[in-house]
Amino acid sequence: MDDHAACSRSRAPAFAARRGLLSRGDRMRVLVIGAAGMIGRKLVHRLASDGALGHEPILSMLLADVVPASEVTNPGSVGIETAVADLAQPGVVRELLAGRPDVIFDLAAVVSGEAETDFQKGYRVNLDATRCLLDAVRAVGGGYRPRLVFSSSIAVFGPPFAEVIDDQQASTPATSYGTQKAIVELLLSDYTRRGFLDGVAIRLPTICVRPGMPNLAATGFFSNIIREPLDGRAAVLPVSVDARHWFASPRSAVRFLVHAATLESELIGPRRSLTMPGVSATVAMQIESLRRAAGDGAVALIRHEPDEAIARMVDGWPRAFDALRAHELGFRAESDFDEIVRVHIEDELGGVIKFS
Amino acid sequence: MDDHAACSRSRAPAFAARRGLLSRGDRMRVLVIGAAGMIGRKLVHRLASDGALGHEPILSMLLADVVPASEVTNPGSVGIETAVADLAQPGVVRELLAGRPDVIFDLAAVVSGEAETDFQKGYRVNLDATRCLLDAVRAVGGGYRPRLVFSSSIAVFGPPFAEVIDDQQASTPATSYGTQKAIVELLLSDYTRRGFLDGVAIRLPTICVRPGMPNLAATGFFSNIIREPLDGRAAVLPVSVDARHWFASPRSAVRFLVHAATLESELIGPRRSLTMPGVSATVAMQIESLRRAAGDGAVALIRHEPDEAIARMVDGWPRAFDALRAHELGFRAESDFDEIVRVHIEDELGGVIKFS
Repeated sequence: MDDHAACSRSRAPAFAARRGLLSRGDRMRVLVIGAAGMIGRKLVHRLASDGALGHEPILSMLLADVVPASEVTNPGSVGIETAVADLAQPGVVRELLAGRPDVIFDLAAVVSGEAETDFQKGYRVNLDATRCLLDAVRAVGGGYRPRLVFSSSIAVFGPPFAEVIDDQQASTPATSYGTQKAIVELLLSDYTRRGFLDGVAIRLPTICVRPGMPNLAATGFFSNIIREPLDGRAAVLPVSVDARHWFASPRSAVRFLVHAATLESELIGPRRSLTMPGVSATVAMQIESLRRAAGDGAVALIRHEPDEAIARMVDGWPRAFDALRAHELGFRAESDFDEIVRVHIEDELGGVIKFS
Repeated sequence: MDDHAACSRSRAPAFAARRGLLSRGDRMRVLVIGAAGMIGRKLVHRLASDGALGHEPILSMLLADVVPASEVTNPGSVGIETAVADLAQPGVVRELLAGRPDVIFDLAAVVSGEAETDFQKGYRVNLDATRCLLDAVRAVGGGYRPRLVFSSSIAVFGPPFAEVIDDQQASTPATSYGTQKAIVELLLSDYTRRGFLDGVAIRLPTICVRPGMPNLAATGFFSNIIREPLDGRAAVLPVSVDARHWFASPRSAVRFLVHAATLESELIGPRRSLTMPGVSATVAMQIESLRRAAGDGAVALIRHEPDEAIARMVDGWPRAFDALRAHELGFRAESDFDEIVRVHIEDELGGVIKFS
């Protein structure tokens, strides 16, 4: 029996890869899975704009997602291909690897709220599809050993934990989403140890301020209460202002991914999962940052509507980390929540806010 | 798509369950998966002999394994069925659940050495087959929520770790076997949290003294150096006498399993994996216990043949635990290595040894 059964059934792929673009050369080939997502889009934009990953020029990027990735407006010298493909469908991932990407970013996921309400979908996408990817990389063989950067999450940690969580903390997730992330972390370490690939899992803080529409992530309100007022709209706060959580901006998330892609493998060592740095802030601190950026009028748009269920859930979330290993490896986040708000205003609002 | 793909393909089962025996009643129905293994046989013998699990009389036991389970010589009032079935084959596990067992012991595994040499077999048996079991239990529905006792292992822990490891230790396995066990632990906790089953994973110490023939477990020599001399045969010691490790007898392993099956679910709490108590002993301590039990002649049968590869591997293994949670929940192991040797002599040699 070849591998994990879900991956071994052959089936026509959902797209046709144009392989010419991905022919071998001196420059890097990059595969971004989940390229149409919020972080994926920003990562692709940055890579195209840099034209390089670290010191290595990028030859081409293959952007894969279940929906079409948005067009890259300024690809420079980077050849860009897109593939609309459901990785949970057998056979698809083999096609994505046809060009033997040197670096793979795996950002595709069903978010926390949805993985909790749709048990099977969460496991299918967050676990099975990712395992198919790992097995497909392994199946290539012949010394192929790409860097694979996996976007994990602080959701791998569940209570009880210390007020400040260190790098020794056990992964005892309190959600199906966190469980799926923790399992992939284990697989990634084992596959790396066995020499099948060169994996790094980065545990992202809650990304704040998320641009665009609210999604099904349970952490969404932390972004809503900043993004909506900055745009002149009301937002609901379902928890107490004392609730504390761990944040980094989308810009930091992209920086983490790029840094993880270029780190020396030996520096990482056998533990391939790294808790990313971030900012520990209470909702009250968030609100004061909003006030400093946009004044009382913006803050007045936040309506406090306590929701016991959400409050209980947030109570079970990590509040702060001592991300020492990541820090030693050169990962950097914002230094306070003011900076997170500033990054949002710069990157999403062109520096312009409705209240000031 | 229904579940994990490997489980969803229907196929004729490898055996025909005789369901009459497992009809509903007041007494317990027990399913033992891996019943032909060393621990499985001892567990079945004990359950048949007790005729009960805790305070509950046992109606029937279904003994499943890839090879025929040995006959139970004295089943008493317990109805016994056997099934030769490869759980990694789709559809099989649904048949095993046809009688809706109240308690399921999942002991089936590819051992550590083999999971390292045969990557795919290890994942197929230790991960995929177990996940099929969990999903099959979940698929039953209708309030069916059996106690599932999973035999995990201290192999979920990899270096670096403290000299004495506590219950907060992160699972960072250094082998594929340990990775597979750690993943099942995560699944078991999530499936329990979601209410699909009532799982407990017990992390067994290295079982010593293993009776019978050496198997492919990398830890086998710890048993060989006691069992073989007690039987008048030579044994090879591949590591230094300073090597320290964590042990419990087969009798303790069975006691752990029975206790795990009868524990109140609420007492266990959300963290469903428990490190079992044991005895921390160096090889030198093992040898002195052998000497006290069987004299210098027995010890002289141990031949020291250092093996660098094995020594390096053992260096990466846990040496001692503070198994506080398990202890508080009433799990008990031997108190020293003398007792472990005594248990072996009583249970395997009928109290008779060749040297004394």
